[in-house]
Order: sequence, then structure tokens, then C-alpha cells
Amino acid sequence: MANLNVLTICGSLRKKSYNAALVRALPELAPANMTFKASPPWETIPFYDADVQEKGFPQQAEDFAAAVRAADGIIVTTPEYNWTIPGGLKNAFDWVSRMKEQPFKGKPVALQSASMGPLGGARMQYHLRMCMTYLGCDIFGLPEVFVMLAQNKFDKDSLKLTDEATRKIVTLQLEGFGKYIERVKA
Amino acid sequence: MANLNVLTICGSLRKKSYNAALVRALPELAPANMTFKASPPWETIPFYDADVQEKGFPQQAEDFAAAVRAADGIIVTTPEYNWTIPGGLKNAFDWVSRMKEQPFKGKPVALQSASMGPLGGARMQYHLRMCMTYLGCDIFGLPEVFVMLAQNKFDKDSLKLTDEATRKIVTLQLEGFGKYIERVKA
Amino acid sequence: MANLNVLTICGSLRKKSYNAALVRALPELAPANMTFKASPPWETIPFYDADVQEKGFPQQAEDFAAAVRAADGIIVTTPEYNWTIPGGLKNAFDWVSRMKEQPFKGKPVALQSASMGPLGGARMQYHLRMCMTYLGCDIFGLPEVFVMLAQNKFDKDSLKLTDEATRKIVTLQLEGFGKYIERVKA
Amino acid sequence: MANLNVLTICGSLRKKSYNAALVRALPELAPANMTFKASPPWETIPFYDADVQEKGFPQQAEDFAAAVRAADGIIVTTPEYNWTIPGGLKNAFDWVSRMKEQPFKGKPVALQSASMGPLGGARMQYHLRMCMTYLGCDIFGLPEVFVMLAQNKFDKDSLKLTDEATRKIVTLQLEGFGKYIERVKA
Repeated sequence: MANLNVLTICGSLRKKSYNAALVRALPELAPANMTFKASPPWETIPFYDADVQEKGFPQQAEDFAAAVRAADGIIVTTPEYNWTIPGGLKNAFDWVSRMKEQPFKGKPVALQSASMGPLGGARMQYHLRMCMTYLGCDIFGLPEVFVMLAQNKFDKDSLKLTDEATRKIVTLQLEGFGKYIERVKA
Repeated sequence: MANLNVLTICGSLRKKSYNAALVRALPELAPANMTFKASPPWETIPFYDADVQEKGFPQQAEDFAAAVRAADGIIVTTPEYNWTIPGGLKNAFDWVSRMKEQPFKGKPVALQSASMGPLGGARMQYHLRMCMTYLGCDIFGLPEVFVMLAQNKFDKDSLKLTDEATRKIVTLQLEGFGKYIERVKA
Repeated sequence: MANLNVLTICGSLRKKSYNAALVRALPELAPANMTFKASPPWETIPFYDADVQEKGFPQQAEDFAAAVRAADGIIVTTPEYNWTIPGGLKNAFDWVSRMKEQPFKGKPVALQSASMGPLGGARMQYHLRMCMTYLGCDIFGLPEVFVMLAQNKFDKDSLKLTDEATRKIVTLQLEGFGKYIERVKA
Repeated sequence: MANLNVLTICGSLRKKSYNAALVRALPELAPANMTFKASPPWETIPFYDADVQEKGFPQQAEDFAAAVRAADGIIVTTPEYNWTIPGGLKNAFDWVSRMKEQPFKGKPVALQSASMGPLGGARMQYHLRMCMTYLGCDIFGLPEVFVMLAQNKFDKDSLKLTDEATRKIVTLQLEGFGKYIERVKA
């Protein structure tokens, strides 16, 4: 079984982010043939401006795009801000979407979100599904991963993912995503 | 009839933006008692980071919030990027949503979008409606303003809004929005 | 304080429906000046067909519309089916939306949903918000009522709403909705 | 190249429906290896009721499900009612979603809509994408087919699809959908 090289993109910048902690939990929950690499930072990319684009894409946007292109699949793990996608994360997508060799085109994608509220970022995930459909991704369906009430699911000090039900659903998603990547690859 | 002080927030940075051109057309299409003021820039606000927030809100986010607080109503005029809200604009909302005296709470809002495609930014508007519902806004309903095929609706050189049908629907929206502000104000 | 006559519309037909049970709990949780009346049945309205409409609206659709017109406000309490609005309930809206004196126009609306899953019908509510925005309703914002894991929130035999946290959030929503009706009425 | 047996599901009942006319145009625009069959009627299925389901699925719902199971791919062509999915069509999905051998699971799906308005049913398509993601479908991405201002795109008498730009985009969608079916099939 071929190795699957998965790029993780995290939508939160804060150090104690539950979403970042969820990304760190992925390797131990993944199938044996799935490996993970973190995306280059998106927070150093300037705000999208078509006038700037005319002079050339920022190097940081090119780096982000190159990492997407090199991956067999993508996992986006991100908080929900104000019922939709965090602006900073979205800005990276806005840049790379304008590139001639658009990096997300044809990439299998799975989504995850963690929040301290009862819905776990669900509203945001449907907006992100729309966005990434336009980008030409093949988007994995079920099971979905919503880590609601995240403050109860991670160890307070180490931020290790300790909740068994969450560990199980993430494991199931990663198994399914691995098979999905194999199935839909062109 | 009281003057209605409306803040305009534009989601595009490029100089020849059709959305910026639409904002410039508003005064001549508005009811006599409606005046407009452009929001402070959002492109100088850093990306949202809860760790930065703990040390204090950026002054540019405070300026943006103050302008929202001072308005009787808000009009957001923005392109759609990748079927949803531009990341840069959203980042401003992400910051001010964390403020104790959250500026959008209770504000009447109307939405507009222009694009060169056939849908005129419609997909984005429903995401923005969700976002601004969470922010506690009263969101104006119909008529909606979608300036599709914008390249045919504005003068190529002056970017003046020349399309009569578009001028009419914007006029109707502004009239309706004026009455809506009067009706829903607490 | 004027009495507020609220019409309840329930999206489920089964006798032991948690959504129907939630509707039955409303009177004891509502402000003193709010009274409730159940909508006429929607399950006796035929499927929408424009050719049938040309010959005249079904009497059951007219009855449903008349009940909406007579209300000061509407509460829709409904399950989510397949991540969106139940077809049967939607069919009633499809009929009355074609009437010349469209009954939902200008009506204040609040939404509720119960489900046995972890999201409590949330995905559906955002679709219903869109639908009812088009119908010209003024839609109440926060707090939202999602009764997730409903099997744990109602008494197994009597189906009485026993969960204290749910009773509290419903009480807050009804209080807020009462004030909203007063505020936005034309 | 294997024959692809595509089931068409039309969301409108009226005889002069533009959506039904669009379905009739598919064979002449499709790749040589794609054949079409219309779904059994959904308008004879009763409204979904879990109490009825306990006694057994209606035969008409079983017939609808069997047709879905037999197809290599599905095309749903439907109007938008009140910014979302027609209730009658949705009711058929609500029934079959409860079946043990859920018929839509793993089926490739493409969406189309026609309307007399400027957006061509776009708002509805994103709700239908969500619904069919839950049903376990693989949903075709781009190009999307929105037949806006449908009254100008079909011959007034014969209802033949005459608009060249629309014929071209439908042709492109069907070509892409054919390749998509081949690619994603398990």
C-alpha cells in the first residue's frame, strides 16, 4: 500500500489552540501508510490585493501553494470564527486560488474543527466545503469530525487528545480518508 | 426625518474594484436623509491571534470598531472570493467580534456584491448573512443587490455605475434599508 | 403589555416526536403575555404543482396561510432531515409563498430544532433562515435553540421537557423573541 | 468505454417546466456512452412519517430507491423554491434515506437547475449538495449548470433548449460527469 503524504493546514495561531492540538494527535490515530506534514505559515502572507498580484505572488503564497501541490491529500483543521471560516486562513486560499497551476485542483480534502461551544465548528465546515468545491477539491464525506466542548476533550496541561470517543471518530475519519484518497485519485 | 449615518465597508483592496465603484455610487442613489462614511482600513489590522488579543486589541481594530459603533446602519459591499467571504475583510470582523462592547450588536446591515461572473457574489452573501447574524446585526432582507457581469455595468474609464437596472435596484434597496433602520432601531 | 399571539409550526408527524414535545413545553416557559396556537396540518396539503395552483390554491394551503396571517409571531420547531428542511414542512411553505397576500411577509419568526444527534438540527436551521428571509420574515437571532441528544432531555414516558439547561435556553429565547416582536413590528 | 446508465430526477411537476425541458435536452448533449432513464414519480409518495415507516416503506418509495440503486450516476434537475429545495422532491429523499440499503450511498451525482430569475437556482444547489453529501453521494464539482432567465433559453412552443451557451455548458458538464463517474467508482 503506497504511502499517503497528507498536508495539515491549521486555522488557528494561538499557542494553546485546540485545533493545533488536534493536528498533533493525528499521527498516532492514522493508518500506518499515512504521514503528515504541516503547511508553511499562512500568517506571513499579506492580505489579498489584485494590484499586488499583478506585480507577482508573494513568496509565502508560493510556498503555501507548493506544499499543497506536493501532497496526496489535505486535512484542514480549523476553528470557526463568527459562524464561518477564519479570515487569516481564508486569505491564504484567496491567494493560491488565483495561481495558474491552482494547487488545490484535484486534491482530496478532509475537514476537522474543534471549539469550546456545543457545535464544534460545524457551521464553518459547510462554508469550507463550498469554498473547496470551487477550488476543485474532492472533499471527503462521512464521518465528520467536530470536537465540540474541546476544553473537556484535551488534557489541560499537555493538550493531548484524551477523549476516547473523539479519538475513535478521528481514527475512523483517517481510515476512511485514506481509502478515499486511493479511490478518487485521477 | 432624522439623518441616517451609514458606514460603508468595502471588501476589495484593488484600485479599480467594482465593489469600491459601487460604494462611490451610493450617495447619488440614496434617500435624502442618508449619508455615508467609509470605514477605516481593515488591511492594516494584523491577522487575528488570541495570544495577541490578550496583550490588547490592535489600534486599527479599535478604530474599525469605533466607526461601526458610531453608525446608524452598515452597508457591506464586497466581492466573493472562492464562493465565500474575502479573508481580509473577515479578519476585521474576527477581531471586533471579541470586544466586550461588540460593535456590530444591534446594528442594521445591508449587503451588496459585484463580480464579473453570472451570480454577482450571491454565494458569499449567504455566508455573510450567517456571520452577521451571529454578530447580532439586524440584516435587511429584500431586495438583494447582486451586480453580476460587473464589467458591463460600470463605465470602463470612470468606473461610474451606468447600468440603469442596477441603479434602480440599488435605489430600491437603499430606500428599503432606510425604512428598515427606522423600524428596527431599539 | 399587549398579548403576543404566536403560531407554532411543527415539522414532524410522528406521535412521539421530540419536536412536538418541545412545542408542548413552550407555554410554561414563555413570558406571561405570550400565547400559542398550533398551525393547521400541513400533511393534508398536496405536493406543490404550478398547474394545480392555476386552478386554485388547495383549501388546506389557504387554512395554513390564514393561520400565519393571524399571528403576531411564528415559531418553527422542526427536525432536520438529511442536513436540511423536512420535505413535508417545506411543501407547505412552497404553496403559501405563491399567494398574492403572502402570509409570512413581515412576520417575526424564531426557530427551534431537536434531534437525537450531537448537532440538534443546526444545519437545517441555517437553510430555514435563508428560506424565511426570502419569504420576508424578520428572523430572531440569538439565543438559538438546538436540542441535541434529545433522547436525554425529555422524560421517556411523558415526553415532558425535563432538562434544566434546555428549559433555561428556551425561556431565554422566548423572552428575547417577545421583545423582538415588539421592537420590529411595523 | 462502458455504458453509463444515468438516472434523471426532476424536481418540478408542472407540464411546461423548464427543468423537465432541460432533462429532455440531455440525451442529445451527452457523451455517446451515457444513457438516461427518468426516475419513478416522487409525487405519489406520502409525506414522511416515522410512524408510517414502522409499518413498512411505501411501495412508491421502494420503487424510487430501486431506480437509484440501479443507476451508475444520478442527475438531479430541479427548480429552487424559496431559496432552497422543493418540498416534494425532498420528501422522496427523506424516505429513502431511512432505508437499510440506503440507495444514494456511493452514487455519483451532478446537479442542474433552471429558473426564470437571475441566479438560476444557485442557492438551492448548495443546500442540495449538503443533503446529498450526508446521503453519501460523490458530488460532481465544476462546471455547474444554472439556467437563469430560463424563459429566454428554451423555445416558447416546443420548450427545446435553444440557447447555445447553455447547450455548451451542459455538454461540458455531462462530459466531465462521465469522466467523474469512471474515476470515483469504488
